[in-house]
Amino acid sequence: MHYLPVRIAGLGWYLPDHTVTSAELAGRIGVAPGLIERATGVVERRYAAGETSAGMAAAAARMALEHAGLGVGELDAIIGASTAPQQVVPCTAALIQRELGAPEGRSVCFDINATCLSFMLALHTAAQFIAAGVYRRVLIVSSEIVSPSLNPNEWESAALFGDAAAAAVLTAAAPGQASAICQARFATYSSGAELTQCVGGGTLHHPNDPATTREMNMFAMQGPAIFRHALRTMRPFADEFFAELGWEREDVAAVVPHQASRHAIEQLSDRLGFRPAQVWSNLRERGNCVAASIPLALAEAVHAGRIRRGDRVLLIGTGAGLTLGALALVF
Amino acid sequence: MHYLPVRIAGLGWYLPDHTVTSAELAGRIGVAPGLIERATGVVERRYAAGETSAGMAAAAARMALEHAGLGVGELDAIIGASTAPQQVVPCTAALIQRELGAPEGRSVCFDINATCLSFMLALHTAAQFIAAGVYRRVLIVSSEIVSPSLNPNEWESAALFGDAAAAAVLTAAAPGQASAICQARFATYSSGAELTQCVGGGTLHHPNDPATTREMNMFAMQGPAIFRHALRTMRPFADEFFAELGWEREDVAAVVPHQASRHAIEQLSDRLGFRPAQVWSNLRERGNCVAASIPLALAEAVHAGRIRRGDRVLLIGTGAGLTLGALALVF
Repeated sequence: MHYLPVRIAGLGWYLPDHTVTSAELAGRIGVAPGLIERATGVVERRYAAGETSAGMAAAAARMALEHAGLGVGELDAIIGASTAPQQVVPCTAALIQRELGAPEGRSVCFDINATCLSFMLALHTAAQFIAAGVYRRVLIVSSEIVSPSLNPNEWESAALFGDAAAAAVLTAAAPGQASAICQARFATYSSGAELTQCVGGGTLHHPNDPATTREMNMFAMQGPAIFRHALRTMRPFADEFFAELGWEREDVAAVVPHQASRHAIEQLSDRLGFRPAQVWSNLRERGNCVAASIPLALAEAVHAGRIRRGDRVLLIGTGAGLTLGALALVF
Repeated sequence: MHYLPVRIAGLGWYLPDHTVTSAELAGRIGVAPGLIERATGVVERRYAAGETSAGMAAAAARMALEHAGLGVGELDAIIGASTAPQQVVPCTAALIQRELGAPEGRSVCFDINATCLSFMLALHTAAQFIAAGVYRRVLIVSSEIVSPSLNPNEWESAALFGDAAAAAVLTAAAPGQASAICQARFATYSSGAELTQCVGGGTLHHPNDPATTREMNMFAMQGPAIFRHALRTMRPFADEFFAELGWEREDVAAVVPHQASRHAIEQLSDRLGFRPAQVWSNLRERGNCVAASIPLALAEAVHAGRIRRGDRVLLIGTGAGLTLGALALVF
C-alpha cells in the first residue's frame, strides 16, 4: 500500500445550459426513436454553446473552492486534466489561472493527459506533491468540450458523449481526519491505442496540412473491441488491485466508474464483483464526458449525499491508450 | 529543501537528418543574409521530414535506456512531456510505449504539458513517484515537431525553432550515490498567457471550424514583451530559489537553460549572476526545440563530458503560460 494522507476538500462542476435529448439527436443523425437510449443508456447530454474550456473549468473550480472553504489565492498548483486543450499553447491550466483570477506567481500551472483517466492520474500526482510537502493545496480541473469532435456518421459513439467540467481541491488530511488515498494502480496496453482515437489536432495530421480530413479531427471508437479488451484485462487488474489494497469488494461504499458506456458500467456488477447498488452512474443524464466524467460523477455523488466523509470510495475505469486505472480513497 | 534521492540514469536524443541553415532559411522567407544569425543566434536547426513525434521519442528513449543500462521491459511509467501531441487521442506516451515495443500492461503512460518547461515539470513529478516508491524506473520523453506550426510571416520566431526529441530515464539513487534533485520551484504568471500562443488545435478554434484560419494553427510569439516580463520576474525568482536551496551561484558546475533565445541565455550571465562559462548552450546548432530543448541540452552536455557524476546542475527557464522554472540537481 502507498497510503497518502490527503483529502479532497472540495468538489464542483459546470454543465453547459444547452441540453440535447437523445430523441432530438436521433432525429438529427437519422436513427430510429429510442435506439440511442437502448444502445448507449444516455437519455440526454449537454453541449457547450459559446463556453470555453477554461471558462467552464473556472466555474467548476469556483464551486469546488467554495465547497472546500478556500479562496482562489490559496492554491499552490493548478493541474489541467483534460483530453483536448483549449489551444495548443499555452497549457489549459495557465488559462484557468487567468480565468479564475488566481494571483499570478502564486501557483504553478500544468496539464496532465491520459484521456478519460486524466483526472485519476492528476489526483494521484497531486497527492504525491502534497504528501511530500511540496504543495499544500492543488486544484485539479477536467474540462471537456468534445461535441465539435463527434462524428455524426458514427452515431453510437457520437450519441455517447457530452460536454462538462468538474474540479477538485486536494489538501493534506488534518490530524484526526481519516481522508486518504489508499492505493492507486494504472497500466497501459498500447496494442489498444487504435481502439479510441482522434488522429488529428497534433503533429501527425497538422490542421494546416491539406491532407488532413474532417474525419481525422473527429473521435473514432471501436466500442465492441474496447469492450472485449476491457473484459479480458479488467478482472485480473481489479483482483490484483484489491489484493494489494487489502479491502473486500463489500467494504466499498461507492464505486465511481468512468461513465464509458452502459455496458462498461454494467460489467462492474456482472463481472467485477460489485453489487449494482454500490455503483454510481450519471451516464443517463450526462453521457460520457471524457476526462470530466469521473470527477463529475464523484462531485455529484458527494453533493447528493451518496458519499460522506469517511466512506471508502473506488474510482475505476478505462481510457484511450488503452489504460486501466483504479484508485481507492477514504473520502 | 525538498530533497529527492533520484538519479538520471540515462539520457538520449534524436535529431531529424534534415538540417536547415539560417542562410537557406533567409532565402526562403526573404530576409537579408546574416540577419537571422545576428538576431536569433541560431545558425542551423533540424526539421522533421517524415518522422513522427512517437518515432522520434522512441529513438531518443532507446539511446537513454542504453545509456542507463536498462531494458525497455524495466520501465514502470512513460511520461510524454511535449507541447504538441502526436494526435489528440490517445496521449503521446501510449504511442511511445507501442513504438518502443515496451511490454504492455507493465507501464502506465501519460502526458505532462507545460510547453517549454514540460520536461522539468515531468522530471519533478517522476521524482515524487520514485521517492515515494510508487514507480522504480520512469522514462520521460520530450518530442517536438514544431516546424509545421511556424509562421513564415513572423520570421524572427519562425527562425528560432527546431525539431528534436530527448529522453531521460529516472531511477532511485542507490546507497552511496550522490545523485538527487535538491530543489525545484515553478510559478505561472498568466497575465503573460498571450505572449506565446498557438490558439488553434484545441477546443477554442477547432480544426473543423470554418472560422479557424491557418494563422491560428501557427506559433505567435511577442519576443520583446516576453523578454521584458522575464527580466522583471526572473531575478527575484532565482534569488528566492537559491536562498531556499542554500547553494551559491558559483557552486553550480553547469547551468542548462531552456534555449529560448540568444538574449534569454545571455541574461543568465548579464543579470542572474552566473559566469558565461557555467552556461551550456546548443542554441546555435539546434535552435529552440520547445519542450525538447532542456533535456536535449542536458543530454548533449552529459554525453560531451561537460557534466559528470556528482556535478551540481541547474535547469532553468521560462515557458509559455508564462511559467518560470528552476530545478537544482546533483547529477
